[in-house]
Amino acid sequence: MNWVNELAAIVAVESTGVARAGHASDVSGHEAVWPDAVALPVSAGEVAAVLSWANDRRIAVTPWGAGSSVEGNPIPVKGGICLSLERMNRVKEIRLGDRLAVVEAGTKYRELNRQLAGSGWQFAVEIGGDATIGGMIANNAAGPKAVKYGSTKAHVLGLEVALADGRLIRTGGRAWKQSCGYNLTQLFAGSEGTLGVITEAIVKLTPAPAVREVVAARFGSVRDAVGCLGELRRLDAGAIEFLDRSYMGFLGEVVADTLFCEFHTAGHGAAAERICRAGGAASVERAGEELWAARLRAYTASQEANPEARLLTTDTAVPLGAFGEMVEFLQQELASRRLTGYLLGHAGDGNLHVILPWRSAAEWAAVEAFHGAAVRKSLELGGTASGEHGVGMGKREFLAAEHGEGAVAVMRMMKQMLDPRGILNPGKVLPSQNVTYANGE
Amino acid sequence: MNWVNELAAIVAVESTGVARAGHASDVSGHEAVWPDAVALPVSAGEVAAVLSWANDRRIAVTPWGAGSSVEGNPIPVKGGICLSLERMNRVKEIRLGDRLAVVEAGTKYRELNRQLAGSGWQFAVEIGGDATIGGMIANNAAGPKAVKYGSTKAHVLGLEVALADGRLIRTGGRAWKQSCGYNLTQLFAGSEGTLGVITEAIVKLTPAPAVREVVAARFGSVRDAVGCLGELRRLDAGAIEFLDRSYMGFLGEVVADTLFCEFHTAGHGAAAERICRAGGAASVERAGEELWAARLRAYTASQEANPEARLLTTDTAVPLGAFGEMVEFLQQELASRRLTGYLLGHAGDGNLHVILPWRSAAEWAAVEAFHGAAVRKSLELGGTASGEHGVGMGKREFLAAEHGEGAVAVMRMMKQMLDPRGILNPGKVLPSQNVTYANGE
Repeated sequence: MNWVNELAAIVAVESTGVARAGHASDVSGHEAVWPDAVALPVSAGEVAAVLSWANDRRIAVTPWGAGSSVEGNPIPVKGGICLSLERMNRVKEIRLGDRLAVVEAGTKYRELNRQLAGSGWQFAVEIGGDATIGGMIANNAAGPKAVKYGSTKAHVLGLEVALADGRLIRTGGRAWKQSCGYNLTQLFAGSEGTLGVITEAIVKLTPAPAVREVVAARFGSVRDAVGCLGELRRLDAGAIEFLDRSYMGFLGEVVADTLFCEFHTAGHGAAAERICRAGGAASVERAGEELWAARLRAYTASQEANPEARLLTTDTAVPLGAFGEMVEFLQQELASRRLTGYLLGHAGDGNLHVILPWRSAAEWAAVEAFHGAAVRKSLELGGTASGEHGVGMGKREFLAAEHGEGAVAVMRMMKQMLDPRGILNPGKVLPSQNVTYANGE
Repeated sequence: MNWVNELAAIVAVESTGVARAGHASDVSGHEAVWPDAVALPVSAGEVAAVLSWANDRRIAVTPWGAGSSVEGNPIPVKGGICLSLERMNRVKEIRLGDRLAVVEAGTKYRELNRQLAGSGWQFAVEIGGDATIGGMIANNAAGPKAVKYGSTKAHVLGLEVALADGRLIRTGGRAWKQSCGYNLTQLFAGSEGTLGVITEAIVKLTPAPAVREVVAARFGSVRDAVGCLGELRRLDAGAIEFLDRSYMGFLGEVVADTLFCEFHTAGHGAAAERICRAGGAASVERAGEELWAARLRAYTASQEANPEARLLTTDTAVPLGAFGEMVEFLQQELASRRLTGYLLGHAGDGNLHVILPWRSAAEWAAVEAFHGAAVRKSLELGGTASGEHGVGMGKREFLAAEHGEGAVAVMRMMKQMLDPRGILNPGKVLPSQNVTYANGE
């Protein structure tokens, strides 16, 4: 492709098979698509230059963080350029007195926390994947600690964003309190790289908990476990996770519907033990790091146990009081459809995943049908199709059912306004786009 | 005006002098402007019908909550329609199990909390004005408790919004965790009624604190007081307020730079006392409701003490570590400019107000010059022109300096996209609009 040579005059480019294959898929089951070239900018200026050029040429550009997302968010489905932020990985400033850090978008959140170790401060979002902060903001990732700290979007004070036409803008700032104009920060957060490319972020730092009390409570029924959630949420809970009996069996643990919680105030672990015992728990114990590590590795473990399969992951989040009804619905649907599915979730905030392996077109159709039923039930309960993974490729079809045609029309207007030529992360978030790209030429 | 009769066929309208004068100004010093008519819809459908009609006729529409804002946000500077939500004041649902309430936009937050009294739950934003929840969302109000709970925008799960052309859309939903499409909720929150009219909101409920320990610490210098902030912030602080010596004198209290804090975990009051004593406080005491009430009445008290004056209120918020530098700068500027100004602020989150009375064009010029200097200093420190009052009329001129022309251009595109005929709350947020309205005809 002639345009790759042109691109290489602007930015470092790799177009070997190895490089392209390495930027063709995330950890989801969505089909890999190779980009034509991988661009590796080292500065916001280079990102902007790539976009300006690609916009003129109408070449598809798909931003890439670490490829750890689970909904196809960074798959370059139209080929073109994979715009990888991996070389923009500097922690530029850590300001404990201001409770913030300034990072390039390609910085891994674990690297920021490594640099913060011992300071008493943390970037408080913790997820399973080895993700970049830019990617976490773009997908609004959350993870188990969101019950206390909120999703990634709650940790962003400001952004630098490269727009589709190559303009660089800044949103927000360094103040913890801002009410000065339209909230562009929250428009780009969660937009999955379809409205602009995040190049830098000002993120909040949060005191690291001085106390960590971990409790595992095993129940004879989902209903008993769920009955404890209301009281557990009123403690200083850093995580309230639910793992269903079949998933615990899969992990080689005691087969029981299990609540797995972490508390950050001394004595709250003991209070949680009392709550769970009074709520009918068959056993309650102080747990260690092993089960916690197993929980964070849920997705990877599911893949390793089914090496030949692809995975579909549901991500519904329902109103808090409907969590039990949703769990029981999903268990019944799995049973009646005779599907294998690993059910686990963030019980503290109503977010539930079922990880479903599939190996054939017929199995795909079956897990897709289950997914549709799960989302319909979630919407019926007032919930969402996606609590933390984003819309990506797999949740687009539900957008109008969830938000209504009117709200989706406003989303389309925003896309049209900020990316009129449709070059940014095509095929994601919005249900369909009809654009012909020049990168095939 | 002929159009008022047309409007009256759509919605209840008041156009007496009393009604118009009662919807002509907020509590700020910005000049009152009478609307031509006050529309009093009782449903989202009526709001939508008014907008559809006004959009066709190009008649200015300024949404109105309770008129308690402090930056001219609801003043109908182009006349036309004041769209008051005051009759849409129902708490539609309180769902403790889901930790949410559904309210019509004209519901006062104090009314919601009155209905929640005794339940152990609260709507956690507390401000001085007797505001509506819709108005608080539109202006992203905050108040003293924001140091713990965040601004109003952090308490909104979903909205119903009437767009300028009369379409009704819903944003967000009832799940506490949402990552499903562009964040329209946060686009309308803080947009001050310039992008759409909020008609209904789903808001979070928060556990009411079981413990309340209030500490007042008086210091001999700003520097000593500010030196304690870092440690105080690490406690379970529900509020960390700063009142400077001259303001304390104005209140008839002990003349000293004072920190006034509230804590929600038993023993944290005592810990705060130790921190402040070690930090050089001249006196530390457990305080009661009186000083707290005085703090919340700061704005009203300033007006009552200067009945013949108007007030200009600065609203800068700086990075947390720069709070002391900002206080000292403002004190020096007040002294060198020989201005009377009441300095107080939300020390926990870097937000500072100076309330400046003025009585003449010359005094106005002087307080405006001070305001400009304060904002320039805040921006230089990485802060904002507005932490919680919104842009309204008085902060428009700083928008480009704060966000850059690029970001302001994106804000303009959003306004153009959602309100192409410019009928919604003209003259607010964005620096200038050139629209000729038909309501003068």
